Amino acid sequence: MNIAVDAMGGDHAPAVTVQGALWAQSELEVNITLVGDQDLLAQELSGRKKAGNGIRIHHCTQMVGMDEAPLKVLRRRRDASIMVAFDLVRKGRADAVVSAGNSGATIGAAALLLGRIRGVEKPGLAGVFPGAKGKVVLIDVGANVETTPRQLFEFGIMGDIFTRSLLNMDNPKVGILNIGEEGGKGNERVRIAHDMLKKGPFNFIGNVEGRHIFSGDVQVIVSDGFVGNVAVKLSEGMAETMGIMVEREMSRSLLSRVGFWLSRRAFENLKRNLDYAEYGGALLLGVKGVGIICHGSSSPKAIKNAIRAARDFVNSRVQDQLEERLGRFRSGGL
Amino acid sequence: MNIAVDAMGGDHAPAVTVQGALWAQSELEVNITLVGDQDLLAQELSGRKKAGNGIRIHHCTQMVGMDEAPLKVLRRRRDASIMVAFDLVRKGRADAVVSAGNSGATIGAAALLLGRIRGVEKPGLAGVFPGAKGKVVLIDVGANVETTPRQLFEFGIMGDIFTRSLLNMDNPKVGILNIGEEGGKGNERVRIAHDMLKKGPFNFIGNVEGRHIFSGDVQVIVSDGFVGNVAVKLSEGMAETMGIMVEREMSRSLLSRVGFWLSRRAFENLKRNLDYAEYGGALLLGVKGVGIICHGSSSPKAIKNAIRAARDFVNSRVQDQLEERLGRFRSGGL
Repeated sequence: MNIAVDAMGGDHAPAVTVQGALWAQSELEVNITLVGDQDLLAQELSGRKKAGNGIRIHHCTQMVGMDEAPLKVLRRRRDASIMVAFDLVRKGRADAVVSAGNSGATIGAAALLLGRIRGVEKPGLAGVFPGAKGKVVLIDVGANVETTPRQLFEFGIMGDIFTRSLLNMDNPKVGILNIGEEGGKGNERVRIAHDMLKKGPFNFIGNVEGRHIFSGDVQVIVSDGFVGNVAVKLSEGMAETMGIMVEREMSRSLLSRVGFWLSRRAFENLKRNLDYAEYGGALLLGVKGVGIICHGSSSPKAIKNAIRAARDFVNSRVQDQLEERLGRFRSGGL
Repeated sequence: MNIAVDAMGGDHAPAVTVQGALWAQSELEVNITLVGDQDLLAQELSGRKKAGNGIRIHHCTQMVGMDEAPLKVLRRRRDASIMVAFDLVRKGRADAVVSAGNSGATIGAAALLLGRIRGVEKPGLAGVFPGAKGKVVLIDVGANVETTPRQLFEFGIMGDIFTRSLLNMDNPKVGILNIGEEGGKGNERVRIAHDMLKKGPFNFIGNVEGRHIFSGDVQVIVSDGFVGNVAVKLSEGMAETMGIMVEREMSRSLLSRVGFWLSRRAFENLKRNLDYAEYGGALLLGVKGVGIICHGSSSPKAIKNAIRAARDFVNSRVQDQLEERLGRFRSGGL
């Protein structure tokens, strides 16, 4: 198993990507190829404790900035780290890519170099949320800004397979994100997708609302990428705000400060439960290969966990199942 | 001042609406007209402590159920409580309507009976969020499922006026909800609206992301109603899930339980900070009159606070300013 890490991608690259890769390599028994500038990466590695020979550097001369428009730069920058990383997968020299870089560029590079699975119109990005009753998969969390009903239907198939195979959930409930649970709600796109999903080969339970993303009553939630992206970022912001508010309230009185200190372990657990870094990243579904997209501000722990997710994805039969199941619907006239 | 309360609307009507109205009447020095079934409401009132003569019942024979499709029933049900309530405003016999009933029916009844302000294509629903650095107004949180750029522009104007006048914020920052802060992001509708908002008579700062809804760095966030509605419900669900997780973690050890008990006041404050019931409801902007839409599961406290919001709205000059400012743009060629 060899995971290609876009070492130049992310707000704190390459320091964070290199540290995350080192942790992953020693804990997870995977080989890692750091893709990026040879000198810079060698320098980052030199100061750190290495576990063995499982880390290699693959040199490239270019990168894509976090704020660059992917469509404009990608085709002209074949030696950008994210392009080179997916090229290693295409050539069979790596099994998966992990990137905390420009997410549009990551999705674009994957589509360009690996291609889409037959039957898939658009790849979707699956995010994993910590629900009160268990994990919830939201797809799409931002690969697309406009989605057709047919694409939403594909997200249902992909989300179902992913959730069964990687999260080990039996017969997950699949819902579509809408503004009310009753039938007939929402805009036209969502209403048509609802009717298509009803006929899908999974346990479709109908419309769900924003609150279901954190309840865990439904395990797979289909959404267009604009709404899904807002949902992810809103959740992050709200968790952060609540953290600030907790500290503010707790510091107001001596009693609360003592209470806070006594229950600090509980707070740590809570924080871990809500921490996206625990799953590491979002999974790109629908391309011929494995790509994990991390938050630009990922910690080394998040990078490590994303590498674990990539390893599990490769070891699972998800990719085969996606190809088999989606191919069946390609000619199914849906 | 007389506020008409749709006493039949909400998951726990009329018990909750009557209780909320009684509290509001005694605390806020407003007169209240409970609109609904005379016998039922008289019975609800009879068991409760009354503050004075400020509560009246206005009898009607019909209502709209929470799950009914508003467009289908509204025109044929002129004696439904929500229709009668807005009719009281139309006739000058009430100053505002508060409803925890079917929100589509409330918006529909307001548009039918009061009409839109000149220059407004579609009314918008403004929700108030508790940001880390102060309140954040999100408009629209669900009045519309499809929104044009022109309507998003109108939401910007209305949100700005509302925030200045009712939340007393000076020169609030206005942003548009998008999937990235850089220019050129998002779908076509949002990109066009972005360019229109740039020329608007307010402090437009560009694209904002989901995380800004809880940060308080921006005070007004413009969004289409589908995304806004998902955002509201996601926030509610996440707050609930975090509450469950806190209790679960805190009960795991004796130390945490003691800590939790010592800091219980801080938790109560936190809960209040995050409680939507504190503001009471969402404000319908763009119709010729004041309507406050409460959550179907509102508590009596939420109803009371919504009545306070209605009173403040009536006392403010918001409505005049909306008519003046939007009228100016009607012929402005935007």
